[in-house]
Amino acid sequence: MSRVLLVAGGNPSDWPTIEPATYDYFVGIDRGCLHLLEADLPLQLAVGDFDSLSREEYHFVQETTETLIQAPAEKDDTDTQLALQEALQRFPQAEMTIIGATGGRIDHLLANLWLPFEPRFQGVLRQIRLCDRQNSIQYYAPGSYIVPKEPDKEYLAYCCLTPVENLTLRRSKYLLTNQDVPYPTSYASNEFIEEAAAFSFDAGMIAVIQSKDK
Amino acid sequence: MSRVLLVAGGNPSDWPTIEPATYDYFVGIDRGCLHLLEADLPLQLAVGDFDSLSREEYHFVQETTETLIQAPAEKDDTDTQLALQEALQRFPQAEMTIIGATGGRIDHLLANLWLPFEPRFQGVLRQIRLCDRQNSIQYYAPGSYIVPKEPDKEYLAYCCLTPVENLTLRRSKYLLTNQDVPYPTSYASNEFIEEAAAFSFDAGMIAVIQSKDK
Repeated sequence: MSRVLLVAGGNPSDWPTIEPATYDYFVGIDRGCLHLLEADLPLQLAVGDFDSLSREEYHFVQETTETLIQAPAEKDDTDTQLALQEALQRFPQAEMTIIGATGGRIDHLLANLWLPFEPRFQGVLRQIRLCDRQNSIQYYAPGSYIVPKEPDKEYLAYCCLTPVENLTLRRSKYLLTNQDVPYPTSYASNEFIEEAAAFSFDAGMIAVIQSKDK
Repeated sequence: MSRVLLVAGGNPSDWPTIEPATYDYFVGIDRGCLHLLEADLPLQLAVGDFDSLSREEYHFVQETTETLIQAPAEKDDTDTQLALQEALQRFPQAEMTIIGATGGRIDHLLANLWLPFEPRFQGVLRQIRLCDRQNSIQYYAPGSYIVPKEPDKEYLAYCCLTPVENLTLRRSKYLLTNQDVPYPTSYASNEFIEEAAAFSFDAGMIAVIQSKDK
């Protein structure tokens, strides 16, 4: 499976460590295009309305990127929604890692956190991952799953983004059995006790967040 | 109405500007107790399991605070849930401003963002406010509301924390009329066009976020 890195406009000081060789394709989202180039990473697809860039910055992006998709400034989609859609059209099976999408404005963070609810992304929610310096977020539809521990993370959280039915947490420090969760709830600060944890549920959507303190 | 400031353990560099005279009572939550004292603010109620504090730090908090509530380390409530409950028992009508509750770990941020869903807090959700350097979050149950602009903020977002019925946004740059919102959605980057915006909805819960870029 190929891997796509999508870089939104958040502060690069919040990025996780990026191993360029891990990714097959690099997408810049608005100001994220500049952040990619400043980090000496390739810019293959540039998406955005680019209203946060100066004319010089915009020309630099335009001359450097392989492909540019210019969005109108007033539109229903956010730049990140549009970029994810364009990336999925090109690489429908790829893992999509989104960085620069957290920190700062919480309305933006929530728009990014909730991307997998959109009908066009729900079918590929397992391919979407949001990452920053302290957090790695993956999405799950009803089913039964194994969650491998990420080596640099300490904590494990099951964040029920909706009401959830019949949640069972296994192979972790804190356990739950057939719990119905009536409203959005963050079961935070759980911990791995072995190389992988396990969970299952019957209805709703869950974001599993692995995190560390700093 | 009296005002209570609750300070959780997040980095004080993310705090909003605090005017001490605005608050009638100061609550420290775990490491937030130290942050309050380091900022030369009073510490009247200290709540937490304090497992993040050294013995010396713990003694300092213990000797300085008016009241200390020691929570067990392994408990169902988070320290913030417990602190909010204790503050509401003392000041049932007060406005509760929670700081130090965002930034860093997203599982913690979500646990704090979703506090008003809990049955014990739902009845007072209009009294709860989450604030940091860039964001101010208030909560709304179904009804019709006016939202006064906060002078230091630029953006206005309607974050539907649940499916929402019949959402109408008025007196703002972007409008909606009788919109049903089928899943959690952040209507971000709206703007005030006068001193207050207005909105109404019939079912669900909405967080209104006023924010600025830096």
